[in-house]
Amino acid sequence: MQLHLSTWTEVETYLERSPGIIIPIGSTEQHGPTGLIGTDAICAEAIARGVGDATNALVTPTINVGMALHHTAFPGSMSLKPSTLIQLVKEYLTSLARAGFTRFFFINGHGGNMATLKAAFAETYAHLDELNIPNADRVQCRLANWFMCGSVYKLAKELYGNEEGSHATPSEVALTQYVYPESIKQAPLSEEVASGHPIYGAADFRRRYPDGRMGSNPALATPEHGKQFYELAVKELSNNYLEFLGSE
Amino acid sequence: MQLHLSTWTEVETYLERSPGIIIPIGSTEQHGPTGLIGTDAICAEAIARGVGDATNALVTPTINVGMALHHTAFPGSMSLKPSTLIQLVKEYLTSLARAGFTRFFFINGHGGNMATLKAAFAETYAHLDELNIPNADRVQCRLANWFMCGSVYKLAKELYGNEEGSHATPSEVALTQYVYPESIKQAPLSEEVASGHPIYGAADFRRRYPDGRMGSNPALATPEHGKQFYELAVKELSNNYLEFLGSE
Amino acid sequence: MQLHLSTWTEVETYLERSPGIIIPIGSTEQHGPTGLIGTDAICAEAIARGVGDATNALVTPTINVGMALHHTAFPGSMSLKPSTLIQLVKEYLTSLARAGFTRFFFINGHGGNMATLKAAFAETYAHLDELNIPNADRVQCRLANWFMCGSVYKLAKELYGNEEGSHATPSEVALTQYVYPESIKQAPLSEEVASGHPIYGAADFRRRYPDGRMGSNPALATPEHGKQFYELAVKELSNNYLEFLGSE
Amino acid sequence: MQLHLSTWTEVETYLERSPGIIIPIGSTEQHGPTGLIGTDAICAEAIARGVGDATNALVTPTINVGMALHHTAFPGSMSLKPSTLIQLVKEYLTSLARAGFTRFFFINGHGGNMATLKAAFAETYAHLDELNIPNADRVQCRLANWFMCGSVYKLAKELYGNEEGSHATPSEVALTQYVYPESIKQAPLSEEVASGHPIYGAADFRRRYPDGRMGSNPALATPEHGKQFYELAVKELSNNYLEFLGSE
Amino acid sequence: MQLHLSTWTEVETYLERSPGIIIPIGSTEQHGPTGLIGTDAICAEAIARGVGDATNALVTPTINVGMALHHTAFPGSMSLKPSTLIQLVKEYLTSLARAGFTRFFFINGHGGNMATLKAAFAETYAHLDELNIPNADRVQCRLANWFMCGSVYKLAKELYGNEEGSHATPSEVALTQYVYPESIKQAPLSEEVASGHPIYGAADFRRRYPDGRMGSNPALATPEHGKQFYELAVKELSNNYLEFLGSE
Amino acid sequence: MQLHLSTWTEVETYLERSPGIIIPIGSTEQHGPTGLIGTDAICAEAIARGVGDATNALVTPTINVGMALHHTAFPGSMSLKPSTLIQLVKEYLTSLARAGFTRFFFINGHGGNMATLKAAFAETYAHLDELNIPNADRVQCRLANWFMCGSVYKLAKELYGNEEGSHATPSEVALTQYVYPESIKQAPLSEEVASGHPIYGAADFRRRYPDGRMGSNPALATPEHGKQFYELAVKELSNNYLEFLGSE
Repeated sequence: MQLHLSTWTEVETYLERSPGIIIPIGSTEQHGPTGLIGTDAICAEAIARGVGDATNALVTPTINVGMALHHTAFPGSMSLKPSTLIQLVKEYLTSLARAGFTRFFFINGHGGNMATLKAAFAETYAHLDELNIPNADRVQCRLANWFMCGSVYKLAKELYGNEEGSHATPSEVALTQYVYPESIKQAPLSEEVASGHPIYGAADFRRRYPDGRMGSNPALATPEHGKQFYELAVKELSNNYLEFLGSE
Repeated sequence: MQLHLSTWTEVETYLERSPGIIIPIGSTEQHGPTGLIGTDAICAEAIARGVGDATNALVTPTINVGMALHHTAFPGSMSLKPSTLIQLVKEYLTSLARAGFTRFFFINGHGGNMATLKAAFAETYAHLDELNIPNADRVQCRLANWFMCGSVYKLAKELYGNEEGSHATPSEVALTQYVYPESIKQAPLSEEVASGHPIYGAADFRRRYPDGRMGSNPALATPEHGKQFYELAVKELSNNYLEFLGSE
Repeated sequence: MQLHLSTWTEVETYLERSPGIIIPIGSTEQHGPTGLIGTDAICAEAIARGVGDATNALVTPTINVGMALHHTAFPGSMSLKPSTLIQLVKEYLTSLARAGFTRFFFINGHGGNMATLKAAFAETYAHLDELNIPNADRVQCRLANWFMCGSVYKLAKELYGNEEGSHATPSEVALTQYVYPESIKQAPLSEEVASGHPIYGAADFRRRYPDGRMGSNPALATPEHGKQFYELAVKELSNNYLEFLGSE
Repeated sequence: MQLHLSTWTEVETYLERSPGIIIPIGSTEQHGPTGLIGTDAICAEAIARGVGDATNALVTPTINVGMALHHTAFPGSMSLKPSTLIQLVKEYLTSLARAGFTRFFFINGHGGNMATLKAAFAETYAHLDELNIPNADRVQCRLANWFMCGSVYKLAKELYGNEEGSHATPSEVALTQYVYPESIKQAPLSEEVASGHPIYGAADFRRRYPDGRMGSNPALATPEHGKQFYELAVKELSNNYLEFLGSE
Repeated sequence: MQLHLSTWTEVETYLERSPGIIIPIGSTEQHGPTGLIGTDAICAEAIARGVGDATNALVTPTINVGMALHHTAFPGSMSLKPSTLIQLVKEYLTSLARAGFTRFFFINGHGGNMATLKAAFAETYAHLDELNIPNADRVQCRLANWFMCGSVYKLAKELYGNEEGSHATPSEVALTQYVYPESIKQAPLSEEVASGHPIYGAADFRRRYPDGRMGSNPALATPEHGKQFYELAVKELSNNYLEFLGSE
Repeated sequence: MQLHLSTWTEVETYLERSPGIIIPIGSTEQHGPTGLIGTDAICAEAIARGVGDATNALVTPTINVGMALHHTAFPGSMSLKPSTLIQLVKEYLTSLARAGFTRFFFINGHGGNMATLKAAFAETYAHLDELNIPNADRVQCRLANWFMCGSVYKLAKELYGNEEGSHATPSEVALTQYVYPESIKQAPLSEEVASGHPIYGAADFRRRYPDGRMGSNPALATPEHGKQFYELAVKELSNNYLEFLGSE
């Protein structure tokens, strides 16, 4: 059940049976020579909708642009500053908490969002408390990174071993190939690929990772793999969501 | 050509032939008992992609949540504060201007975004100038509201007359029916519908417009109408975009 | 009745009979070779005081510096950023709403303020609601641009036709001549005057409009015209104000 | 020479002979049962214009609303938060410094502004440095409180002794009577007047100072006194301004 | 070598041989019935000074108050909001980067700071880049949590097993006992201690963890243990710091 | 009684007998060729703890970095912007006020903090009022600058006369020598020392005060003097604190 395809009266009815809502968040950033700029948003959105269908939960529109400052030396990358993303999350949740939602399940497609999201959750709890919103002290946020699901990680290791890498990975590329088979890209990939450097600023990142990949070989990706990743992530995160909803 | 389905090297190539980019912006807000909460984002996104295809232009991911504070007394509505939306637009454009984009064409689906977007453009020009970005003084933003296209307006009047109203209108509902025929909603609509009141805060809005509609009869909408509106808007805005790109 | 010439006990008494207050807002920006930098503030202030006298309403001090970022490449222009002006308006109205005012009538002298003011109103409604101020949900703001009064527009067209232009117009210059006859300026004006360009950043504006005028011939202005404009605007806006006060 | 009565070309010419500008700042706040709400702005503006005339210096429009949070429990008082006033001052000076002004002489009418202004000066120096504005490191701000002029203080003590008090003082009331003789107010003043309490929040202030005066007897004020104060302040601050301009 | 015990000329000399600096960050928050409110700051500061001595590195004053919003329902806890802590870190590093420092090694004593610090690093890299500070693109930040050192973790497990818990742990309490033996506290500790709940807002935290401990038994702590933890952490983090300094 | 060496239950007990708390604030900034960069924080912290001991009052951790923007052209200096320091103070006091503290006594070691602190107090009163914190309208802040104590000032004049100067003064250097006798620095001091210039931006400050001193001769300082200053300040400020606590 998608929020943008619902009416407000349907949401009103939904709130009678559930205080939970799923919020997909991705990023708009380079993913190497063959990865889509929207990879992280595409994955998060597809999986979130899958989880929503599997659990009969409402899913908000996707936060398409996240915290990707370190990718902004590559054209087409877009980013919010962490403090702006915190503010955005705070306002999203304030709108929803005023309506009665109290369980926010973020399905995230981008490692670079994690720290900022955790900070945003803390800031939001305090903010809602300041606003004297009823049930403010019952609001809970949960961060669910699809790429860190145990089942997903296991399959990626089986299929790709060390060539999974940590950015523009074959697993996420495969998932986008499954979702957008008409947008599978071909481009020469150097055999050597940088890996293991810590992440600092944007210019530094591009110096260290000149084609944008971090230790990955996305040429291994196939749409069929993508389907497998999708199904594993939906299954595992559906369980997580239901556990979250059912917890005290 | 959609940014999220492109690679960074494709964007690099694109920038050699064009400094222009299209940014769809909608809203996530109640649209009456039968209108989709995502109506404004759905319309803006669909038309933006149509314009992108027609003009061979790049289209960014959609800004799904806009300035809808006055709708937030209806469940499911989400909003940024104007000053946060200004900050978001400023950071989007800073990312893109650093990469070399200088012509930003916003295709907007929500009247409530207009003032904030204009304010954001002014603040962005000054900000880019402060950052000493090359070509900062060549950056131009254009606001294109699909629902204010002459051709769209004319058809809406022909089809619906006064029943077009000004929120949850049959024209925008029709467009969403065309895009999402599987999400056409049925619900009883009172014959009387409030209209003509100015817009102030959220509680006041809900008092004046109890079911969310502003003078409209969305029951008149059909997917076929939606197709007509879509095609008119794409055609008119494609011309506008090309004129914008070609201007000094 | 001017706030700055009143005592707090007079304001207390005033509030027993009226919740309305008039807020003049102008700008401090170049107005071509012969227009005063304070033109927009002078006009807004004079008319606001006239309306205050005619309707027995309280008038606040003038917001002298508004949103004029696009004029700042001309010396003497001053501007707030839109987000700062939003903050300022929010704090002005918070002070006044706490005291019991609920109807805010902005008499505006500068087109560049319009978008930011509308954004500020929306942000203020939500802010007052967050503060739990009594009657927060009854607060209403109205934007009244004197230069867009029907009667003013009609006279400007009659007197100046196309030479009215859209910045440093003879109508606004005339009004300042009426208010400050000792400050009528003479300077050579090129016969050719730029017009029709959209407004972007400050450097761009000065390139397109090298002497600051936008399609206008302020040499046509006379103090006598100014008196006429003044009287028309006061009359029309007084009616608007009373209608606003009397509305639900 | 007043900025709002000048043209941009006159300012351009002015800058060839002087980098200095005078900025009046007041407040909009209760001044006891007989003092005008605009007292601080009226005094600052009148004196600033006097100094401008005496020294041939440019004077900006007055900052009418300052930092008066502690007065906001009295109706009609308006205030900016300190951090907002800092931002406002920063943007005023950024506009002016870009045009070439480097010496900013604030003539202040309100003790409550002093701390915030000093903080704003420090923040502005650093901000201008960040913007890489030419001559940023030559920018200087000076705070001149008319009510702390030695000559003014001396006369107030002579005329009023301890009845001068520290808010809604006869000296400032006298000055407003001189400037606005048609707005001299009469109201009963209790013989007892609170004094000597430190200033904390707004509710606390009103509890301690129930009629708004702080130890003062404004009934002693006369327009003739006001003229004397005006002339002393203009003379002393004119000397200060010239010394400031002439300093390294 | 401690910054606060150095002169500016000593710092100037230091910068000729090293671009590195150590920044201790703790928190001021409840640590159960027997743990010191300053535990996290005390540990971070002591270890940072130890590392500074061992590596001849400069150590800044400690950031004593961090991100502890979830502890603020217990008296004595203090917190910054995440967005404020980001701003603080940004300004600290801007001051230091302007002087020539480029390697910032944060020794952190509080798990709740981690997300915000990572977000702050990202925001700082982008900010320094905007300021055009020389070497901005060479700035690197590293987060070193003493309690996550492998050697520390191993000893804690050996000494305390599951009774280490995750807040008000015997290991951190032991370290404070070593540093402040005169401040060892005694208080009855319930045998049952809550554990395993996720962390949300402050009121929720206190409901779930009524005495402030999270699964820990701080009664096991001794100053002798503290000495061991101190020495292990100093040794391991000294190696980490030198590796960081020596890296590309 | 130091907050960081207390437990939350001790604070709970403390609040039953006192609503007061002492907050030391210093700065991290150059203090000439022989003064410690931490001078202002060291002095404030030592004296605050002395006052805490003498009056049985709670003392928070020290705010080590204050408003020292004008010193940032000297390496090792660190500063917050005034608006950031205001935000920090506001959040510190919000944490403490929620717990029940209402009397905040700031012991300050740096003249440059004074304006910002006063602004912060005003902003905090209004903020607490907005948050509807119980007793918000009873919150009081007091600024106590140890270097402005009458007894301190008198001794400094006796010992050093004009060589006290106004920055890197022998009195503050002496106090640090008393607290940290192992960190007494020796460096050649020019006989001539700049003095009497107003303070503007950082580059300007360094031009005018090339070695960082302002009219002072810190070579006159001795640890014995430091002890005297310490004792005088503790005695005088203890009285001030008790008077503050006892006031209405």
